Amino acid sequence: MERKRIAIIGVGLIGGSLAIRLHEKKISSRLIGVDASKEHETKAIELELVDEVLPLEEAIAQSEVVILAFPVDKMVGLLPSILDKVENQIVIDLGSTKSQLTEAVANHPKRGRYVATHPMWGTEYSGPAAAVRNAYENKAVIICDEGDSDLDALEWTKAMYKKIGMHLLSMEAKAHDLHAAYVSHISHITSFALANTVLEKEKEDNAIFEMASAGFESTVRLAKSNPAMWVPIFLQNKENVLDVLNEHIEQLKKFRDKIEQSNEPELRGLIEHANNIKRILK
Amino acid sequence: MERKRIAIIGVGLIGGSLAIRLHEKKISSRLIGVDASKEHETKAIELELVDEVLPLEEAIAQSEVVILAFPVDKMVGLLPSILDKVENQIVIDLGSTKSQLTEAVANHPKRGRYVATHPMWGTEYSGPAAAVRNAYENKAVIICDEGDSDLDALEWTKAMYKKIGMHLLSMEAKAHDLHAAYVSHISHITSFALANTVLEKEKEDNAIFEMASAGFESTVRLAKSNPAMWVPIFLQNKENVLDVLNEHIEQLKKFRDKIEQSNEPELRGLIEHANNIKRILK
Repeated sequence: MERKRIAIIGVGLIGGSLAIRLHEKKISSRLIGVDASKEHETKAIELELVDEVLPLEEAIAQSEVVILAFPVDKMVGLLPSILDKVENQIVIDLGSTKSQLTEAVANHPKRGRYVATHPMWGTEYSGPAAAVRNAYENKAVIICDEGDSDLDALEWTKAMYKKIGMHLLSMEAKAHDLHAAYVSHISHITSFALANTVLEKEKEDNAIFEMASAGFESTVRLAKSNPAMWVPIFLQNKENVLDVLNEHIEQLKKFRDKIEQSNEPELRGLIEHANNIKRILK
Repeated sequence: MERKRIAIIGVGLIGGSLAIRLHEKKISSRLIGVDASKEHETKAIELELVDEVLPLEEAIAQSEVVILAFPVDKMVGLLPSILDKVENQIVIDLGSTKSQLTEAVANHPKRGRYVATHPMWGTEYSGPAAAVRNAYENKAVIICDEGDSDLDALEWTKAMYKKIGMHLLSMEAKAHDLHAAYVSHISHITSFALANTVLEKEKEDNAIFEMASAGFESTVRLAKSNPAMWVPIFLQNKENVLDVLNEHIEQLKKFRDKIEQSNEPELRGLIEHANNIKRILK
């Protein structure tokens, strides 16, 4: 594919890691960074994630592709005004929720220039220093409401994701938000809550932390994740998140009840049922 | 340390992985396997985890060290009768709960020959084929109620664990069970319950599994764990597990309430508090 001038708005973990990939895969001819934080901008230059840093308006004007990688609450506010400034650029967002965002620009005259996407990749760290090589590889990317994007914008976006090694899934924004609640948002909530559960007790005793095992680490690591990213996700996807969270609390109560009753066969039944996750996770 | 003839009772994930390590580190002169499952015994020989397989009584008679690595409910039943058969052998258990087991042999005339331990290592897989190299390395091992073991048995056990690369922690059985509920048992319950939460919805739609991300995988992988191992752990450690599980449900309800109220500052507060887990997890 022909190299393009690409602006990345938000050069943290998500945008920074994509920048590395766009450069490596020779997708970008020039990478322009924009960030609400001066410190992040300086760091992004220092780490050579982007070639230069520009104010938002100028970055849009000088680019052929504009990629949005910042918290989803800011996105809903900024996307319409970014589309206002667009001539023929392709605008792609990488946010974790899709319904509010697509609704916010549903009637925008430049809606066709915009492609709503969610690459299913991230780590529990944040900021430009958290950006890593080989991000996104072999992961899924969801493209939402494809019919609302201009064909050229859609095709370029798909080609870009394929070139960085992702496999494409197509979904409506509403379906995306429902499924994302199950495969991503709930994992973060359980991890945050588990950390708080353990930290409650840590006041009493430090010994537990010397014992922390790989299993513990794996269920709790997401609890390091950035509130600036996750608070808006939970609130924008409130209905789905509450739905799955209530279900999860019910499932935990089943475990509690069976343990309380020392009901061995039914406790075993719950665990055997959970083992079916082997079908999905290799 | 002088090589010893070691019997491993239970040649699954835990016992099999230890067998590999004992051989590698030249701690064993001979490894004898015993398992309730004929299939496991055959597999253990085939995979060269042990040198030979013998009936329990004979294995004990021919060994200097007897290591117990099978589900904790069976352990409570078998440990007293194993101690009945012991002359001067060292008996070490690797179980995940300690109170019931130490109580079961508190007044046994051979109590001194027994060392209660819990190496904090495992994976979500089970059986001899799940045994891996380099298990246990750089993990903690808890030695419980040290004063109740004969000095020679205790010293040999500590030397063995050090030689396979573990760092030692000393704890009373009751304290161990409390802490294990927090750093291990609860992680498994949340993971099982999370799997069941998602599997509830899978009936409606398969798409969510194509989306499964690394974060999801990391919080759910423990849900593959073996019920034969985990049911007895939860029931033996019932009081502590219920205590932490109730706390965890309360913590999840806090998230639910703040999301329901769209209470951004307090939701942020909960997440920032959870971020303190960074102090403990690198």
